[in-house]
Amino acid sequence: MTTLAPTASLSFKDWMGEELRRVEEALSAWVPADAPAGLGLAMRYGVLDGGKRLRPLLVQAAAQAVDGHTGAALRAACAVELIHAYSLVHDDMPCMDNDVLRRGKPTVHVQFGQAQAMLAGDAMQALAFELLTPEDSAELDPRLQARLVGLLARGAGHSGMAGGQAIDLASVGMSLNEEQLRRMHELKTGALLRASVDMGAACGKAAPVALAALSRYGHVIGLAFQVVDDILDVTQDTEVLGKTAGKDQEHSKPTYVSLMGLDGARRHAQQLHEQALQALAASALPGTQRLREIADLVVHRQH
Amino acid sequence: MTTLAPTASLSFKDWMGEELRRVEEALSAWVPADAPAGLGLAMRYGVLDGGKRLRPLLVQAAAQAVDGHTGAALRAACAVELIHAYSLVHDDMPCMDNDVLRRGKPTVHVQFGQAQAMLAGDAMQALAFELLTPEDSAELDPRLQARLVGLLARGAGHSGMAGGQAIDLASVGMSLNEEQLRRMHELKTGALLRASVDMGAACGKAAPVALAALSRYGHVIGLAFQVVDDILDVTQDTEVLGKTAGKDQEHSKPTYVSLMGLDGARRHAQQLHEQALQALAASALPGTQRLREIADLVVHRQH
Repeated sequence: MTTLAPTASLSFKDWMGEELRRVEEALSAWVPADAPAGLGLAMRYGVLDGGKRLRPLLVQAAAQAVDGHTGAALRAACAVELIHAYSLVHDDMPCMDNDVLRRGKPTVHVQFGQAQAMLAGDAMQALAFELLTPEDSAELDPRLQARLVGLLARGAGHSGMAGGQAIDLASVGMSLNEEQLRRMHELKTGALLRASVDMGAACGKAAPVALAALSRYGHVIGLAFQVVDDILDVTQDTEVLGKTAGKDQEHSKPTYVSLMGLDGARRHAQQLHEQALQALAASALPGTQRLREIADLVVHRQH
Repeated sequence: MTTLAPTASLSFKDWMGEELRRVEEALSAWVPADAPAGLGLAMRYGVLDGGKRLRPLLVQAAAQAVDGHTGAALRAACAVELIHAYSLVHDDMPCMDNDVLRRGKPTVHVQFGQAQAMLAGDAMQALAFELLTPEDSAELDPRLQARLVGLLARGAGHSGMAGGQAIDLASVGMSLNEEQLRRMHELKTGALLRASVDMGAACGKAAPVALAALSRYGHVIGLAFQVVDDILDVTQDTEVLGKTAGKDQEHSKPTYVSLMGLDGARRHAQQLHEQALQALAASALPGTQRLREIADLVVHRQH
């Protein structure tokens, strides 16, 4: 097993740039341009060259915290981003959110048609699991393959992301209490963010107590991400966000801001930030610097 | 490892009945009714109580041919059926084939709405990979977990089923030659049928030459299945088929019948049948009785 090169001396910005470059390069190599009848082009359009790549960064940062296997972490990072990207492709379709712009470009169904967009999303999900199960077991230990697949499938499926989307679908125009809202977000965005941290952590060795602490960090970061999203939706304009601002309010979607008010939501984000840092401290791992920096980024981001 | 109970003395019909009952029972236990916001109900509606279950039968028959692990084969059988069922849910949607009836019932999007149908399909795909990666490794050896996931993901994705669907989408109204038509079907239906055989075979131990022969059987059976489908589409009426007959012709889809004529297609089905039996003989495995019977069924079925 090769381990990650020491990059602790890089600034966070340079570290991010380096990791994002590696993920982009790997995705570009693994998402096939030559898949039949334009399918590969639609898949590449849906996943390459865009987005914050928060999930891959969490995978890589967690893997570094446990001195994890570089190649495994890179596959896990790309797999989780493929799941996230496929969910956006399907979410944007007319029968869901009917969005025509994403990351400043026409959405996949606008560019390639609805049928191809649905197929591309489906194939992106399958590809995520292909990446985690290379046929050459020297690339990735089969036990780790199985572990990563299990974490990702559960983060993506009915008890994770897809389940949260179903709650979201059913909750438009309804008034949710804080518990119900939290439950929706724990599944819709939280489950995959937490899975990202768990997958990164699975790429190395750590005591069960450290793994549990990292997983708690992933959970709290997932919640914080959504609270900040809701804050930005009312405080930033569309240009800064790169997506339509004020959309939640317009669609009568329940948000942390509608539930707690803007100040309440800001205090809540702050509390979650502190809980994330406490979880990292509780892990007693020496190399959690990047996870701490990601927590800062998630809470203090302006878009 | 428990192995399969000897069922060689059962008639094929009784054997099928027994296997289908076990698969139905397992799917009913594994596809969660209580997934959030009605998602579980849509998933169950899409996969329970219907269909020929050809893929699970191939998994079980191949597993028996190699004296494979019962529990592993049952998980594989349910996983591959979930992939097949999700593809039908998505295929039936208005942006694809726009079908309103399936197995004599309203399609999932008619019953639950398009958004829920898309989510249910997405969650069914994820669930397939969850079933293959039980957290308790005593349930399924992690090496076998990884192997089964790899086979299923490749059968389902851009180089398998989804890739074939993309070719199908692009080929409506076009004239394909036999090579192009074969390529489309090898991917669209063939890849998952072959994966079913390969997954069943992976549940036991067999010499590489036997595994290769079984895989060849799976390949040929996949082609035969499609040729017979095309024949039935023009020779049977809607009532017998349980789905709209003559649909391919109406949609100007290329078929083996339009390419070879009815007699030519029938001769081709017969040749493929013989090749399937030759592959079983070449495997030199003693327990291929059920695979032989499935080959007979695929070629001689009336619907």
